[in-house]
Amino acid sequence: MAVPKDCPAPDVVRSAYAQLAVTDLAASRWFWVDMLGFHVQCETKDALHLRGTDELTHHSLVLRQNDVAALDHISYRVRTPEDVERAARYFDALGCPVRRVPAGKGTNGVGDAVRVVDPLGFPVEFFYEIERAERLIQRYDLHRGAQIARLDHFNICTPDIPAAYEHYRGLGFGCSETIEGDEHELYAAWMFRKQTVHDVAFTGGAGPQLHHVGVATHESHQVLRTADIFGALHAEHHIERGPGRHGVSNAFYVYLRDPDGHRVEIYTSDYYTGDPDHETYRWNVHDDRRRDFWGNAVIESWYKEASPVLDLDGVPQPISATILDESAVKVGADGLG
Amino acid sequence: MAVPKDCPAPDVVRSAYAQLAVTDLAASRWFWVDMLGFHVQCETKDALHLRGTDELTHHSLVLRQNDVAALDHISYRVRTPEDVERAARYFDALGCPVRRVPAGKGTNGVGDAVRVVDPLGFPVEFFYEIERAERLIQRYDLHRGAQIARLDHFNICTPDIPAAYEHYRGLGFGCSETIEGDEHELYAAWMFRKQTVHDVAFTGGAGPQLHHVGVATHESHQVLRTADIFGALHAEHHIERGPGRHGVSNAFYVYLRDPDGHRVEIYTSDYYTGDPDHETYRWNVHDDRRRDFWGNAVIESWYKEASPVLDLDGVPQPISATILDESAVKVGADGLG
Amino acid sequence: MAVPKDCPAPDVVRSAYAQLAVTDLAASRWFWVDMLGFHVQCETKDALHLRGTDELTHHSLVLRQNDVAALDHISYRVRTPEDVERAARYFDALGCPVRRVPAGKGTNGVGDAVRVVDPLGFPVEFFYEIERAERLIQRYDLHRGAQIARLDHFNICTPDIPAAYEHYRGLGFGCSETIEGDEHELYAAWMFRKQTVHDVAFTGGAGPQLHHVGVATHESHQVLRTADIFGALHAEHHIERGPGRHGVSNAFYVYLRDPDGHRVEIYTSDYYTGDPDHETYRWNVHDDRRRDFWGNAVIESWYKEASPVLDLDGVPQPISATILDESAVKVGADGLG
Amino acid sequence: MAVPKDCPAPDVVRSAYAQLAVTDLAASRWFWVDMLGFHVQCETKDALHLRGTDELTHHSLVLRQNDVAALDHISYRVRTPEDVERAARYFDALGCPVRRVPAGKGTNGVGDAVRVVDPLGFPVEFFYEIERAERLIQRYDLHRGAQIARLDHFNICTPDIPAAYEHYRGLGFGCSETIEGDEHELYAAWMFRKQTVHDVAFTGGAGPQLHHVGVATHESHQVLRTADIFGALHAEHHIERGPGRHGVSNAFYVYLRDPDGHRVEIYTSDYYTGDPDHETYRWNVHDDRRRDFWGNAVIESWYKEASPVLDLDGVPQPISATILDESAVKVGADGLG
Repeated sequence: MAVPKDCPAPDVVRSAYAQLAVTDLAASRWFWVDMLGFHVQCETKDALHLRGTDELTHHSLVLRQNDVAALDHISYRVRTPEDVERAARYFDALGCPVRRVPAGKGTNGVGDAVRVVDPLGFPVEFFYEIERAERLIQRYDLHRGAQIARLDHFNICTPDIPAAYEHYRGLGFGCSETIEGDEHELYAAWMFRKQTVHDVAFTGGAGPQLHHVGVATHESHQVLRTADIFGALHAEHHIERGPGRHGVSNAFYVYLRDPDGHRVEIYTSDYYTGDPDHETYRWNVHDDRRRDFWGNAVIESWYKEASPVLDLDGVPQPISATILDESAVKVGADGLG
Repeated sequence: MAVPKDCPAPDVVRSAYAQLAVTDLAASRWFWVDMLGFHVQCETKDALHLRGTDELTHHSLVLRQNDVAALDHISYRVRTPEDVERAARYFDALGCPVRRVPAGKGTNGVGDAVRVVDPLGFPVEFFYEIERAERLIQRYDLHRGAQIARLDHFNICTPDIPAAYEHYRGLGFGCSETIEGDEHELYAAWMFRKQTVHDVAFTGGAGPQLHHVGVATHESHQVLRTADIFGALHAEHHIERGPGRHGVSNAFYVYLRDPDGHRVEIYTSDYYTGDPDHETYRWNVHDDRRRDFWGNAVIESWYKEASPVLDLDGVPQPISATILDESAVKVGADGLG
Repeated sequence: MAVPKDCPAPDVVRSAYAQLAVTDLAASRWFWVDMLGFHVQCETKDALHLRGTDELTHHSLVLRQNDVAALDHISYRVRTPEDVERAARYFDALGCPVRRVPAGKGTNGVGDAVRVVDPLGFPVEFFYEIERAERLIQRYDLHRGAQIARLDHFNICTPDIPAAYEHYRGLGFGCSETIEGDEHELYAAWMFRKQTVHDVAFTGGAGPQLHHVGVATHESHQVLRTADIFGALHAEHHIERGPGRHGVSNAFYVYLRDPDGHRVEIYTSDYYTGDPDHETYRWNVHDDRRRDFWGNAVIESWYKEASPVLDLDGVPQPISATILDESAVKVGADGLG
Repeated sequence: MAVPKDCPAPDVVRSAYAQLAVTDLAASRWFWVDMLGFHVQCETKDALHLRGTDELTHHSLVLRQNDVAALDHISYRVRTPEDVERAARYFDALGCPVRRVPAGKGTNGVGDAVRVVDPLGFPVEFFYEIERAERLIQRYDLHRGAQIARLDHFNICTPDIPAAYEHYRGLGFGCSETIEGDEHELYAAWMFRKQTVHDVAFTGGAGPQLHHVGVATHESHQVLRTADIFGALHAEHHIERGPGRHGVSNAFYVYLRDPDGHRVEIYTSDYYTGDPDHETYRWNVHDDRRRDFWGNAVIESWYKEASPVLDLDGVPQPISATILDESAVKVGADGLG
C-alpha cells in the first residue's frame, strides 16, 4: 500500500456525502427527515437526497432503496475538476478497482465522479462538481427535529489501523488525535482535510464496515432535544449511546441507529485544526475518558456492530476480524499518553 | 378601595388565562400557534383555546374574533368552588360591577365563573373548575416554535400604582419586587400567589390597559429561537424589545407584538418566592439595570403602547393618564434602593 | 402508623436543608464548594453551611466533620412558629422519638427546632425561623462550577414504599408521580409541598438510608458543565450516572458521589404542581423510560448504594431489606400505566 | 493599489492576534482576563499575552501598556517560513513601509516577522513561527467568565471599502458576505482565509481605525453569561450593543468596550466556507436584518467610534472620513439583494 510514485494524490477538500442502501425508504425518511431534521433536496422513486441546514450543495446524505442495508459509498469533494481524474490514476496505481462515473450516470446532483474500492476495502467516490442549493442557514422556521447543520465525518471500522492511517496520510490528511497503547500501537485515529477534528476516523473492528456517519449541530441543547424526541415517541431504542462528551475531539455526542441499523452520531463542538503544524493529540488507551470524558462505559454494540459495505457492483465486501481490540482493553490504570 | 369587612377575599391560586379579542383569527393563529408554539386545545368558528406544553388544564389563552382588538378579561383560578362565590361577594362589597357566568355560558372549558370590573377598571374572571387536558410535557415531538411551556403572568398598565398594589394586597398577593423613587414612591410592583416572581405586575402608564401577557419557556435558547424564526420570515417587526435580561425578576425575555398589537413576553428563569416571610426586593428607579440588566435602553413604544380593555358588556374602558411616568426618569445616577 | 387524632400535622412549606456527616471536611469542601459552586455562608472548625445562588436563607446544606459518613438529618421549614410545636406533638402522638432543639443549641442559623425519628426511621427536623442571607441571584460573577441555584428535594431509600407514601400523605404532601407494577403495587413515589414535582421521593431499597440530595440549576448546559469539570480534573469517578433525562419528573440530571459516597443529583427542569386538584402521573415499572427517558440502563450502584442515617444520638439506624426490588424488574415489555 | 507582478502574495493561514496599546494594564487585565476569561500565557512588566481556551499557540491578544490607547498591529499567520519574506517583498512592491522584525525583537512568543503599513493605512504583521501552548480545550475547570475559545477575526474601519476588498482579494482572501446598495455599491465586506465567515471585515467609517476584535465562544449561553457578569458588577456600561443575532454571518453577538474603549465582539455560530467555489452572499443595505437579524436598531456609537491605529514608529495614523456612510441609510424599504 505504498504511495505511488509520479502519481500525485487528489487534493481532497472535505468529506462530502455518504450514500446508504436502506430497505424501507419510508421508515428511513421518518428517521432522517422527520426526526433528525434533514432537508429533502431531491426525492425520486427509490432515493432521497438530503442535506443539513448549513449546507450549500445538493446533498450530504443519499438514502437508496435496496434489498439489503449497506454502505453504497462514502464520497469526498476534491479541489479542482482535474483532481477527479487524478484520483482515478492514483487508485489505479495503487492497484485498486476504479470506475469513472460521468455526470448523469451516478448520484443525482453530482458531476463527473470516480469511484474506487480503496486499499482498505471501502467504496469511495471523488468528485468536484455538485449542484448548488438554496441557503437555509437562516431559515430557522424550517429547522426542526435535531436541526442537523452539516455532515461532519465518516467513521469506518477497519482491522488494520496503521494501514488506514498510512493510506489517508498518502491522501494528504492530517491527524488530529489518536488512541494508542503503552508501546504507541495505534488503536484509533482521527484524520482531517477541512479545518475540524476529522473528515474520517478509524475504529478498530471487523472491517471493512461503516461504523457511523457523523453530523453536526450548532449547540448541545440540540443534541439533547434529539434524544428527547425519540423518547417522546417511545422510540428510545434508536438511541444507542449517550448523550455524552467524547474525550477524543471534545465533541458532545449522541449515537442513534436508523431503522436498518445504520449508526449516526449527532455531534457538536470540536476545534480548529487548520494551522500548518497542527500537532496530533495522543490518548492512552487506558484513559477511560478517551471514549467518554465523563467515564461512562461504552455499550458493547457500539464496538461490535457496524454496516456492511458494497463493492462497485453492489456486492457486500468480505469482512476480516480486527487486529487490536480496543473494547477488550482494561481501563482505569490510566493516564494521558 | 378599602378592603370590605366580613367579606373575605377569594383564595387565588394563580393567573390562569387571558382572553384576547383579535380582529383576524387566521393571522393570530399564525402568530400564537405556528410561531410561538401554543397547542390548540379547542377551535371553534370564532375562537381558539390555546395552552402551553406544560399546562394540564384546558387553556391559558383564548383568542376571540372581534371587530376591535382588546382584552376581554384576565382570569384567576381559585382554590375551591366556594371561592368563586366569595369573589362575587368581595367585589360586590367593593362596589364593582359583578356578573355570574355559569358553566357553559362563558368561556369553553371553564366551569362556573364570576366576572367583575375590578377597582382598577380591569375585567377579571375568577373560576375553580376547568377541564383537564392531556399531558404534553414530554411530547417533545410536538414542541415547536418558541416552545411555550405555560402562562406565567399578566402585566397591566394602571395610572395609580399604589392603588393597584393595595388592591392586590387585599386579594392576598405577595410582593416580590418593586421599582421605587428616592422617596419610596412606587413606580411599579410585581405580585404573586403561585411561588414565582409574579402572577400580575403593574406598569405605570395610561390605563386601564393590558401591557402584556407573560409566558414561560424552559431555557434561554428557546427565547433566542423565537426571535430567530421571526427574523427568518422577515417578520422581525413583531419583535419589539430584546432579547434581554430584566433586572427585576431576573427573567431572560423577548417582547413581541401580535398582529393586533397585543404584546407578549417570552420569559425564562425566575426564582422561588414561596417562603412565608419572602421579602420584597426594591429597585431604585434610577438604576438603569432595573428594566434591562445589561443597561440597554427601553424602546419608547414599550412604555407608551398597550391594549385597551373591555367592560363586562364588551365596551372599551376609558383611559386615564399615569400619575408617575417612569419613562421620563433619568437613569445613570443610580444605586440599588 | 395511623395519623393521630386531634393532633394536626405541621404545615410544611418545603424541604429546607440536609445535614451530612462527612469524614474529611477539606475534601468535602472541594467537592461541594469548588466543584458544585455552593456558596459558603458560614464556616466553623467542624462544619460548613452552604447555600445555592438563588437561596435567601442561611443554608440548604450543612457538612459536619464526623468519624463516620452519614445523614445527620433532613429538615423541613414549616409555615408558622406554632407549626414547630405542632410537629413535636404530632410525632409524639405517633410514638416517635422527639427532641426539642432551642435556637442556638442546634444547627447554626436555625431558630427553635424539633427533631424526630420519623416512623420510617429517618432523622427529620422541623423549624420555622432561619437567618436571612444576602441575595446572590444576580451576582453572576460569583456563580461558578455547577452553579447550583437551590436545594430541590430529598430522595430516601425505604423498604416499604406504601408506608412512606401514607406517612407523607399524613403530613399533607401531594403526590406528583409514581412507579407502579401491573397490579398498581407501589415501587416509588414523588411527593411535594412546594409547587414543584417533589420535596421528597422514595426509592425502594434497603433502608432507612439517604439515596440522594437533589439540587437545581437553571439550564441544562450547567448540568453538562458539571460533568465536564469533573472530567477535566480526571475526577470522573465522582460521576455515577448520567447526564440523562428522567422520565419521572422530566428532569435533566446527573448523579455524583461526594468524597464520602454521599450522592447528589444535579437537576434542571420540572413543572408546576400547585393547582389544588393536581393529578398523580403513574409510570408502569416496565416502561424503560421511567428512570431514563432515553432508555439508558440504570447503573447497579445507583439502586444498591446509599448513605446510612443517624438517630437523634448520632447512632446509625439499623437497615432492613426492601420489600419490592425495582432493580430486578425486567423492562421492555412496557407501556405507560 | 494594483497587485504587484512577479511578486506572489504570502499564503495567509488565518488572523492570528491583535496587539492593543492600553493605558492601564491592571484595568485591562480585569476586563480581558477576569471578565472575558482569556488565559494569561505570559505576563511582563508592560504587557500581557493572552489566549482563548481552544488556542494552541502562544497568544491571540497582546495588551501593551502605553500612553495612548490604540492598535499596535493586527497579525496574520502565514503557511511557511518563506511566506514571511514573501510578505515583505509583496508590500515593498506595493510601495508600503516594511520593517523586518527578527525573533526576539518583536512580540514575545513570535518568531521572525514582517510588519508593514498596508495600503489601507493599517499596521499589519505577518509571521510563521509561534510558540506552542499547553492544550486547555478540555480544562473546563479553568474556563471562566465569557469562556473565550479563540480569536476569530478583525473588523476594520476604512473609508474606501472597494479598495479594501481589492487589497484583500490580492492577498488571496475569499469573500463570504457583503452589504451592497441598490447599484451594488459596496458598503461592507467579510473576507476569509480559514474556513469560517471571516478573518477580516470592513466597516465603512472614518479610517484607518480598528472597529473591533472578534472572539469566539462555543455556545450562545456563554454570550449571555458575558452580559450577565457585567450587569452583576454594575459594569453594564461596558456593554455597547446586543446581545443580538447578526444577519451577516449569522453570528450571535455582544459588543463590549474595554476600559480604553477598544471594542470586542463576543461571537458564536457561523458556518463553513472552505469549498473552492464558495459563493458570496449579498445583503441589500436596506434590509434591516443585515446588522441585526431581529431588526433592533444599531446604536450610534457602534458606527461612529473606533480605535486609532499606530504606524511602525508608534505614531497615530491620520484619519479620513468615509466615502459611503451606511449609518445614514434608511432601512425598511428592504429586500434581500
